[in-house]
Amino acid sequence: MPIAVLADTPQETEVMLLGIVIIVSLFGLAFAGYLVKWVMARSTGTPQMREISDAIKSGAEAFLRRQNKTIVMLAALVAVALFVGYGIVREHRTFDPVHSSMALGAWVTGSFVLGALCSLIAGYVGMWVSIRTNIRTASAAINSLNDALRMALRGGAVSGLLVVAMSLLGVAGLYAVATFTNAVPDGEETKIPLLIVGYGFGASFVALFAQVGGGIYTKAADVGADLVGKVEAGIPEDDPRNPAVIADLVGDNVGDCAGRGADLFESTAAENIGAMILAATLASAAARANIDFNYGIIGVMMFPLVARAFGIIASIVGIMMVKLRNEQGDPMKALNVGYFIAAGLAMIGFGFTCWWLLNAQDAPDAWWHFFICGIIGVVTSFLFVFITQYYTEYHYRPVREIADASRTGPATNIISGIAVGFESTALPVLVTGGALLGSYFVGKNAFPEGSGVSGGLFGTAVATMGMLATAAYILAMDTFGPITDNAGGIVEMSRQPEAVRERTDRLDSVGNTTKALTKGYAVGSAGLAAFLLFQAYMDEVLHYSGLYGKVDPATGRVYEFTVNLSQPVVFVGGLLGCMLVFLFSAMCIRAVGKAAQSIIAEVRRQFANLPRKNDMIQFPDDFKPDYAACVDIVTKSALRQMIMPGILVVASPIAVGVLFRVFIDDENPLIAAEAVAAFLMVGTIGGILVALFLNNAGGAWDNAKKYIETGAHGGKYLTDAAGNKIKNPVHAAAVVGDTVGDPCKDTAGPSLHVLIKLLSTITLVMAPLFIAVKDDHGPDLRDPARVTLPGEPVPDADRPNVFDPAATPTPTTPTTPQ
Amino acid sequence: MPIAVLADTPQETEVMLLGIVIIVSLFGLAFAGYLVKWVMARSTGTPQMREISDAIKSGAEAFLRRQNKTIVMLAALVAVALFVGYGIVREHRTFDPVHSSMALGAWVTGSFVLGALCSLIAGYVGMWVSIRTNIRTASAAINSLNDALRMALRGGAVSGLLVVAMSLLGVAGLYAVATFTNAVPDGEETKIPLLIVGYGFGASFVALFAQVGGGIYTKAADVGADLVGKVEAGIPEDDPRNPAVIADLVGDNVGDCAGRGADLFESTAAENIGAMILAATLASAAARANIDFNYGIIGVMMFPLVARAFGIIASIVGIMMVKLRNEQGDPMKALNVGYFIAAGLAMIGFGFTCWWLLNAQDAPDAWWHFFICGIIGVVTSFLFVFITQYYTEYHYRPVREIADASRTGPATNIISGIAVGFESTALPVLVTGGALLGSYFVGKNAFPEGSGVSGGLFGTAVATMGMLATAAYILAMDTFGPITDNAGGIVEMSRQPEAVRERTDRLDSVGNTTKALTKGYAVGSAGLAAFLLFQAYMDEVLHYSGLYGKVDPATGRVYEFTVNLSQPVVFVGGLLGCMLVFLFSAMCIRAVGKAAQSIIAEVRRQFANLPRKNDMIQFPDDFKPDYAACVDIVTKSALRQMIMPGILVVASPIAVGVLFRVFIDDENPLIAAEAVAAFLMVGTIGGILVALFLNNAGGAWDNAKKYIETGAHGGKYLTDAAGNKIKNPVHAAAVVGDTVGDPCKDTAGPSLHVLIKLLSTITLVMAPLFIAVKDDHGPDLRDPARVTLPGEPVPDADRPNVFDPAATPTPTTPTTPQ
Repeated sequence: MPIAVLADTPQETEVMLLGIVIIVSLFGLAFAGYLVKWVMARSTGTPQMREISDAIKSGAEAFLRRQNKTIVMLAALVAVALFVGYGIVREHRTFDPVHSSMALGAWVTGSFVLGALCSLIAGYVGMWVSIRTNIRTASAAINSLNDALRMALRGGAVSGLLVVAMSLLGVAGLYAVATFTNAVPDGEETKIPLLIVGYGFGASFVALFAQVGGGIYTKAADVGADLVGKVEAGIPEDDPRNPAVIADLVGDNVGDCAGRGADLFESTAAENIGAMILAATLASAAARANIDFNYGIIGVMMFPLVARAFGIIASIVGIMMVKLRNEQGDPMKALNVGYFIAAGLAMIGFGFTCWWLLNAQDAPDAWWHFFICGIIGVVTSFLFVFITQYYTEYHYRPVREIADASRTGPATNIISGIAVGFESTALPVLVTGGALLGSYFVGKNAFPEGSGVSGGLFGTAVATMGMLATAAYILAMDTFGPITDNAGGIVEMSRQPEAVRERTDRLDSVGNTTKALTKGYAVGSAGLAAFLLFQAYMDEVLHYSGLYGKVDPATGRVYEFTVNLSQPVVFVGGLLGCMLVFLFSAMCIRAVGKAAQSIIAEVRRQFANLPRKNDMIQFPDDFKPDYAACVDIVTKSALRQMIMPGILVVASPIAVGVLFRVFIDDENPLIAAEAVAAFLMVGTIGGILVALFLNNAGGAWDNAKKYIETGAHGGKYLTDAAGNKIKNPVHAAAVVGDTVGDPCKDTAGPSLHVLIKLLSTITLVMAPLFIAVKDDHGPDLRDPARVTLPGEPVPDADRPNVFDPAATPTPTTPTTPQ
Repeated sequence: MPIAVLADTPQETEVMLLGIVIIVSLFGLAFAGYLVKWVMARSTGTPQMREISDAIKSGAEAFLRRQNKTIVMLAALVAVALFVGYGIVREHRTFDPVHSSMALGAWVTGSFVLGALCSLIAGYVGMWVSIRTNIRTASAAINSLNDALRMALRGGAVSGLLVVAMSLLGVAGLYAVATFTNAVPDGEETKIPLLIVGYGFGASFVALFAQVGGGIYTKAADVGADLVGKVEAGIPEDDPRNPAVIADLVGDNVGDCAGRGADLFESTAAENIGAMILAATLASAAARANIDFNYGIIGVMMFPLVARAFGIIASIVGIMMVKLRNEQGDPMKALNVGYFIAAGLAMIGFGFTCWWLLNAQDAPDAWWHFFICGIIGVVTSFLFVFITQYYTEYHYRPVREIADASRTGPATNIISGIAVGFESTALPVLVTGGALLGSYFVGKNAFPEGSGVSGGLFGTAVATMGMLATAAYILAMDTFGPITDNAGGIVEMSRQPEAVRERTDRLDSVGNTTKALTKGYAVGSAGLAAFLLFQAYMDEVLHYSGLYGKVDPATGRVYEFTVNLSQPVVFVGGLLGCMLVFLFSAMCIRAVGKAAQSIIAEVRRQFANLPRKNDMIQFPDDFKPDYAACVDIVTKSALRQMIMPGILVVASPIAVGVLFRVFIDDENPLIAAEAVAAFLMVGTIGGILVALFLNNAGGAWDNAKKYIETGAHGGKYLTDAAGNKIKNPVHAAAVVGDTVGDPCKDTAGPSLHVLIKLLSTITLVMAPLFIAVKDDHGPDLRDPARVTLPGEPVPDADRPNVFDPAATPTPTTPTTPQ
């Protein structure tokens, strides 16, 4: 294996691999910068366009500024609590990863602050670019569809690249700092991920508030604008006479762009760290079984970061390849071509990285087993996208059924949509289950029989990495949605010619599809990533309880942390976790309802004194709606109402872990941590299912309405006996469903994705709180007095305690080429 | 303890306790017979009333006949499969409860058939009595409110008593047969519950189809009748000109009466058997610790049955005490008085039974600890009722919020209802969690410290028994609902004077409340009972795997069956279990939507040629709707659509258990059974939450509409500028919510209660299928070569293997009085 000669010592390996990762991350950031320059150099269209765009810009920036202020204050409180808890309250233990409580506190708090900060920046920049890309996309649509398509995608790609590259840079950078400052004793690099778990928590903490606040904002404005505008006043969508229309357009930026950016930032960050923890566990186990990887433990630990780095390059190529040959081209096809290129390249890079870093002379089949796991991940993401399409596009049975049901009114429309939403959970769960079991068993068989090393859990981690390999491209497609939506709004409000509107309409409809698809992708990856993070949590509990690698005197075996759901305390933990999902969803949906009602009241107030004829408002030519009033109302409302659900999610797992410590006794020293694990796992299961229900029902309702608007069941308007155009009640029924679906699919659903991952990262960081540490847990494995059972093979007798520096095996050096 | 002298030998104890139970059950049945006679002796009112009642009767009987035919065929298939599986395919094992495979097959199949048969009878008689009580209640309302109230309650009580007494009689009878035919070797009475688990499965199998079929029927008819009748044609509810009105009234009988009867029958049956299994486990453990109960193992095993017998007597007294002093009395208060009497008496009986049968000289505090567990159960049922009231009655915030949201149209009404439904899961979960943990820890401390006996799991079983103690009364109140609903329909359709209608309206509104409350009770008891049944399943898996009481050579400890959710295979089992809940709900709701649409089409067909003025139908005086056509359509539709969801629920856990056997290996011999356990447990958690969501959202939507009908937000009609009465759009919006809630609260929700318990009983019966039996699982505990760990107290060294007859302790004899 000639590549192995690239580095001779573990230190050189570390420098080389970290170097690759950091350089690629910086390249990703630089490329994002290049795209910003490319976007900013284009035309900003007509003065009317700029006027509208400026209104959106100022609304979005004002909201994000105020939102970030609130989030920063909350994050500061958490940071102080973390530092006090880890640095001062908690006593130092010999098995801690660093030498003193203060150092541990500083690491955890510091990485939390950095993660939170990066997440804030990711969200802010995403919004900043998208509000500048909107108008340029609108202006490009005056020229050609291809120009507009490329503009919107490249603007979206800024977010995508920024998020993925920054999360990678953060993790690699923290790792580099830890390693070059000798934060952990030599040879204990496997403990470094424990120091930087705060990064993931900081990222998800910010993401939760950003997604909840942005989600409430966008849908309250949307529902409010639609209900009084379209339904009551009878004016079209995005009509400049609607006072809530700017708030609606602002919402797309702060909810869909900023929120989703923060969300995917924390996904990739948490997944990077979790995969490193599992990689460290696997590599240590392999080392104990005398299986030495070519690049040692370090190489395996760096594998997730290196694979991700290749994914960034693949995504960049994919993004740059997207173009339309002519005006008649299908933009969705163009995006798909780019995606397939990105996915294909990412898989080539993935395979190479497997062969390079997961190769061991004594386990020659390991690397390709893990490569298969990665392919399972990619296939899973394809399947998720197909299933989401089936349930939310109107070419298929589910959406058609909802449209049919609209013929008997809004009630049957809703009933039918609820049924579709419930049903749509089945296939994704089967796929997720299949992916987990498949990658687990492929990973389990990666090592030679009898070696005693199981790569099963790492296999599931690799599958997750495979699924997230093209995250940057996916996020670019996702941000494409709100950009085209806004571009359409700007074109509509500035009354551009029909041909231009048609172009933005086509892009907008593609944007709706990509938004729905990436939601399916997000929930699927959240499910897989969560499973990986559970395992990281369980590893961590053993570390911090001092039981890692120790013998349980009651069984004579190495302690294993199990989550026994049949224990009442654990079962109740699970029950509470699942309940949290429902209560949180209730809060999100209720917040939208309330905020929408205040918008409606405000719009009605502005319309109150306008002249009416036949109950239709006759707008005077000089009517100037007060956009700012609506923006202000929804800003305040969203900020106020994002606090409670956020605090609920952060506080609940901590409360369970701390309160359930009363159940700790000699036989069950880890019972509170076990209840938290059940809280996390059953909460994740519930979260996946409820998110699928909300996302897909919402998407299906939306498209059932769109399907009717294409002319099905009479279309939008009917003609009465006297030849007048009258509203079609079937369409009106479908509008009810669409409105109900809004907070489901764009507030509660996406917030649940964040919730799932926040639960994982918060428990990772808080784990030490849930443990009553005892120093006398049984003899050390290397204790000569250690017991064995007659007739039983001595378990792991020569297994070193990896947390005793003296006993750590000398770091494995890469083998020389054969 | 003077009562102890009542029996000298275990045989005498058995005869005495079984005698008490069987005599009380027979008394309960006889009393139900007396109530039937009492009801049948009353007047059946006017000829018009009889005509309507006859139409309902023939529709209900026709549906139930056809439904039962289908169910019997399905049950026969299952019975054959059970017999072949247990009697022929499965090899006999030495640790089996009986001497041969054939005998085991016969027992399991026989008890299944008996349970199914009793469940069919319970449903049929419930319907039979209720369609005869309807008309008599209507007729009694001509005289006085008190007469009508008592008529409806006593008619309902027939179901209640029949169900509870029959389930008790079945279990006690099967036990008696097993014991007196010496089916199990002497001294192995603890194995008898394993023989009769089929009874619970048979009961829930029938209950599922009855509830799903009846639930689809009742709501399809209701939704269909309302949408064309009230909304399109503008005729009032229960108007005889509506062709779907008879189908709607039939639905109340076949869905609410027959379905709920079968549901509660299986609840009590499964709970009786599950509690006996746990009692047997506890009593054996106590015997091994030399703690002898006054009535021995038999006394403890009979405790659940004896306590239930007292509950029947208490319920009878409560039912007979209900009366109104005068016309102004509040019927709800009268029902509450009866309930408090029943609950109070039941608790006295419960306390006495605890003191009598759970008393041991060496554990003098045990009995009152378990009594406290029982009280926890009763308090839990009170809390559930209060919480349900808070979320579904219009005196409180949630329903008012929905009514407020209706002012901005149906979309905000639905959004608000979804939020209320999600939110309403929180408090019940906290109460359930508190009850489980509370009773677990009270039970755990029931025995002296150091005795090594833990009554924790039995404590949770006792809490469930406390909650179900007044099941007969609760069921009477529940059946009261559809009876008064039908009585109101008959009064309305036969155009009785205003005063009579007012009386039935008052009762109907009370009936709506009791229906909602008992739904809260049902889901709460399902949650507690499920936890009990998990434990029974786990005990059973150990029995049938031959590992019960054996030492695991890998750990040197007695095998414990754990459900480790962090294992991928187990986690996927849990994920699938939760998904089943969503998919099943989808099927139920979708079935209602489809069946309702065919009703709507039929009614529109019948109305098509009627003259119209201003879009309002002008009914000719001789208009005769074709009721039978609607009844026929909905019958066919409900029967066709109950099959798939039923088969799904039965087949899924079996499929998981059998398919996941591929993951069995030496280290994980029970992995498939473990995955099924997770399927069951996480499925139950999901089932509880989704059922609460559906029930409470549905109830809240219903009452938000009723609240507006009391005049809030303008009431049902507004007056326009010209002084004409026009429909209030706020009310129309609330009607949409009400309609959406119908299939949620009356089809999917209650069916989920049955699903939860069916999952438990089916896994109990199918457990042997999921196990790969190996005969060489480690040394027996009594093996002298058995290992101990240095410094560890020899665990259970003198613990006999209860499945080796030679080693069984001589059955404990009751202590003589001190």
